Amino acid sequence: MLAIGNEVAEGRVDNDNARWFGRQFGRTIAMAVGDDAAEVLPALRFLSRCRVVVVSGGLGPTVDDLTRDFACRWLRCGVQQHRPTLRKFTGKLHRAGIKDITPNNAAQALYPAAAAPLDNPVGGAVGFTVRRAKTRYYFFPGVPKEFRAMVTRHVARGGRRPKRSAARAEYADVYQFTGVPESTLDTILQERLPVHLRTRYGIYPKLRGVDVILRTDQGRDRTEFRKTVRAHLEKFLVVEGDAAPEEKLVRLLRRRRRRLALAESCTAGLLAATITNVPGASRVLIGGVVAYSNALKRKFLGVRPDTLARAGAVSRECAKEMASGALKKLGGDIAVSITGIAGPTRGTRGKPAGTVWFGFAVRGNAVQTERQRFVGDREAVRERSVAYAISRLIRLLA
Amino acid sequence: MLAIGNEVAEGRVDNDNARWFGRQFGRTIAMAVGDDAAEVLPALRFLSRCRVVVVSGGLGPTVDDLTRDFACRWLRCGVQQHRPTLRKFTGKLHRAGIKDITPNNAAQALYPAAAAPLDNPVGGAVGFTVRRAKTRYYFFPGVPKEFRAMVTRHVARGGRRPKRSAARAEYADVYQFTGVPESTLDTILQERLPVHLRTRYGIYPKLRGVDVILRTDQGRDRTEFRKTVRAHLEKFLVVEGDAAPEEKLVRLLRRRRRRLALAESCTAGLLAATITNVPGASRVLIGGVVAYSNALKRKFLGVRPDTLARAGAVSRECAKEMASGALKKLGGDIAVSITGIAGPTRGTRGKPAGTVWFGFAVRGNAVQTERQRFVGDREAVRERSVAYAISRLIRLLA
Repeated sequence: MLAIGNEVAEGRVDNDNARWFGRQFGRTIAMAVGDDAAEVLPALRFLSRCRVVVVSGGLGPTVDDLTRDFACRWLRCGVQQHRPTLRKFTGKLHRAGIKDITPNNAAQALYPAAAAPLDNPVGGAVGFTVRRAKTRYYFFPGVPKEFRAMVTRHVARGGRRPKRSAARAEYADVYQFTGVPESTLDTILQERLPVHLRTRYGIYPKLRGVDVILRTDQGRDRTEFRKTVRAHLEKFLVVEGDAAPEEKLVRLLRRRRRRLALAESCTAGLLAATITNVPGASRVLIGGVVAYSNALKRKFLGVRPDTLARAGAVSRECAKEMASGALKKLGGDIAVSITGIAGPTRGTRGKPAGTVWFGFAVRGNAVQTERQRFVGDREAVRERSVAYAISRLIRLLA
Repeated sequence: MLAIGNEVAEGRVDNDNARWFGRQFGRTIAMAVGDDAAEVLPALRFLSRCRVVVVSGGLGPTVDDLTRDFACRWLRCGVQQHRPTLRKFTGKLHRAGIKDITPNNAAQALYPAAAAPLDNPVGGAVGFTVRRAKTRYYFFPGVPKEFRAMVTRHVARGGRRPKRSAARAEYADVYQFTGVPESTLDTILQERLPVHLRTRYGIYPKLRGVDVILRTDQGRDRTEFRKTVRAHLEKFLVVEGDAAPEEKLVRLLRRRRRRLALAESCTAGLLAATITNVPGASRVLIGGVVAYSNALKRKFLGVRPDTLARAGAVSRECAKEMASGALKKLGGDIAVSITGIAGPTRGTRGKPAGTVWFGFAVRGNAVQTERQRFVGDREAVRERSVAYAISRLIRLLA
């Protein structure tokens, strides 16, 4: 997989296509180079060691979209116009009420004469494919939606879909953990797993936790691995499988018919935004208060002025009153509160940056509170706080 | 730059190091391969065309951290133990109160005997460097914090810092736009710019807008380009420079001594979370209400039941009452409301998915409302709504 584009090579945008491609097809060799023939042509030659090469980017309408020129140089041919694309494209723009069809837009229907054009079901630029020696090359636009649609349609259909890294491993079972360091997790697995499984998994730390992926073609291995995880790592396990923890949380809330209310201080809406990433979250989330100021903590959540004065906003007492206040004032069956010091300021004596208090209020029960100390910068502390809240909610509901 | 790791090659995690590296050093050739000698060794050979090769990943404590083994095979040498690292490392763990120093942790002090060790100021694993022919290779851990610290310390210090893509272009001026399609932007620039500048910029579409970057070594070019942008694209320009729009917003709010209150429905905390990404946001943000349910819109923002029944939650009237209610009930000087249909459901007749209403209330003035129709999926609509709100706030304050 080769991504062409200065914006990727300069780190201005995430290389989303490479990431998506990797997830679809298993392990791939991913390269990213700038809009420069001196980099693109050697990269194409290097990748000729692969059976399938998928190229992304540089087919758009702007002056820096040079991929079709590079491809023509590489294939020693001229360009041809793909009339169906041009017709479809101009029609689409007209229907969308866009009047200014610019010449650079029309250029998107060009492809190298030595290659075969590939229909773009969702966007403007035509793609193309060509075979050189033992390698099949595909060229697609870089816009993620278009790239994905064209890979799905053309690379899969041609029967040339690259084998999953699962060429050797038919299964890739994902286990998502939080609250356990990478090395501890690995040590537990090394000590507890049957010998033949000790080299069959990968450990992938993320900001929000650690993923472990087992690769095997044996159903028996999966059962043994699962048993070990369940027996020795259960308390750190948040999700078994590929789903985001927030998806599991929304599913659990719906199944248990519980509605959730949120009271966020340091995470300031990040927990709400994460949960509402899941379509259908509106059925289980009532809403939340981003109580960044103490005034809002008092007014909207009923935190007592006395509590704020005595214990401060980052305290067990405040977290408790925020959670019970949210349950009372927002309604619902479960409320979560988060209040902490995300940094980058150092916090105070006894309350260093990274200190976060959580409150969990379930209707009819006493509020549970917990303190965590997260490492990392402001972003990491906020992300980890959100992940922690979600994992605890999942445990509360499971 | 070569990132080694199945997690990157499989698209399980973002290739943050490549992105950061690109931003630091300008355009780079970026490769990502799995933990597999059959991929790593050819990649190292391919990259020998570069003067400096920086390798990231695979030096950690777990079984899938194989980079030092690959490096030994490539250099045909054994391993050596870096005693200062081992001492520092065990000391650090002890002080942090971690008792279980595992053998895999100790392995992080190993490096290939043919290479020179490089001190890791922030983490466990030792890095190393070696020169082959005309190329200087650096091997660093993949943990972003460690990778960044070690690149900053060692690659810069050795005087071998790769030239910025600014080898040819001393300046890279960034202009961030919203609300204008990529092709329209390009057409305007092509028509309005002096001829010699028409090939000197790149256009980088993002979910939240479009960046344009001018590359030049001429101060005069910068002035001319800036003049054209100001004259013909001013109304789409959100930020001139590299800062995130939310940083500019926080800066403006502080300068104008204005405090902000938020009322979010479809974006559900994403605007609050985005603004509070900026350290110091607490001084200008009072807080917000994530009013996902109509009950909260009524209770916390004072939206009239009649409005919701007649016009619905996604309407000019509701956006207006949400904004004025936020100003009244949360306090502050400016309030923003967002209510819309993020999808994936289709919405209703006259209100398709992507329809979003905004309200902007400034103390002492009438509430302004605006409707936008955003294309894209749920995530895109939410992100674009947040970007739009921020860009409008910047315009209100500028």
